[in-house]
Amino acid sequence: MDFKQLAATRESCRAYSERPVPKEEIKTVLETALLSPSACNSQPWRFIVCEGETAKKLPDCIINPVLPINRWVVEVPVFLVVCETKAKLMGGVTSQKYAQMDVGIATAALCFAASEQGLSTCILGSFSQKKVKALLGIPKDSTVRLIVTLGYATKDGVRQKNRRAYEELVSYNQW
Amino acid sequence: MDFKQLAATRESCRAYSERPVPKEEIKTVLETALLSPSACNSQPWRFIVCEGETAKKLPDCIINPVLPINRWVVEVPVFLVVCETKAKLMGGVTSQKYAQMDVGIATAALCFAASEQGLSTCILGSFSQKKVKALLGIPKDSTVRLIVTLGYATKDGVRQKNRRAYEELVSYNQW
Repeated sequence: MDFKQLAATRESCRAYSERPVPKEEIKTVLETALLSPSACNSQPWRFIVCEGETAKKLPDCIINPVLPINRWVVEVPVFLVVCETKAKLMGGVTSQKYAQMDVGIATAALCFAASEQGLSTCILGSFSQKKVKALLGIPKDSTVRLIVTLGYATKDGVRQKNRRAYEELVSYNQW
Repeated sequence: MDFKQLAATRESCRAYSERPVPKEEIKTVLETALLSPSACNSQPWRFIVCEGETAKKLPDCIINPVLPINRWVVEVPVFLVVCETKAKLMGGVTSQKYAQMDVGIATAALCFAASEQGLSTCILGSFSQKKVKALLGIPKDSTVRLIVTLGYATKDGVRQKNRRAYEELVSYNQW
């Protein structure tokens, strides 16, 4: 599959089958993410794979009882918790200026790698920082930025993507 | 090429040939980036393609005279200026909470698309916000987040990537 096709095929999946995700598949997905570029090669990220009992506990950190839009996460077999860590830039200067973008870059690679392996993902940005940190023992100086669900979709086929038009978002030589 | 191989092949390129980049190639790269996921599908991004005369003016916005590490940008045929725009999340609420990560995700897709097409890129985070905005007429409520160089590399072959170890950056069920 060429990359544009892969990008068109990747979509947020909110319904997962019970089919277990082989450990080697998870490893390949993460190995690919770790190849990502970052500001001054700072690699300000750390990934925690949550499966089994931990995956059963994580939904309580994600589902907001007031606005329970993410109830489907109770069926997710594997979560990849993406943390932002202290970034050392040039000359050893610590700065988080680029770290969120770097986390986004690595997370994109992770999702593409999963898609190509026939796995599905959904990137979640809404969760209790406090609860996730407590559950997984994440230190104070790191931040949970995203949680990616990982598993096999219950359905085949790709939905039509709803995106703004090229002409609206791309211009040449001027805004 | 499978995606892991593509991720291993993509590398930051700091030496570009004079070979012009066909307009269709630039368009495919950007079309692929526009397929990217974002928080609530907010798509908080806009891309400005800079080529020709504009590409000749942009290096003055990038090269810091005190620390001129990016002098090589004077040879770059095309720049893709990635702007963060106002993000409307659920219920029309405007929030930039996820926008930098979204910009990172779209920029990653852009670089992968370029690599697959035989083009090279380098993601730059260091430039004068004020100068870039003035040159390209970027409105006050948008932020230039990244500038991606685009063109054909002068050299073939891929350098060895220097990345932290898997065991250092990935753990299972606990930090």
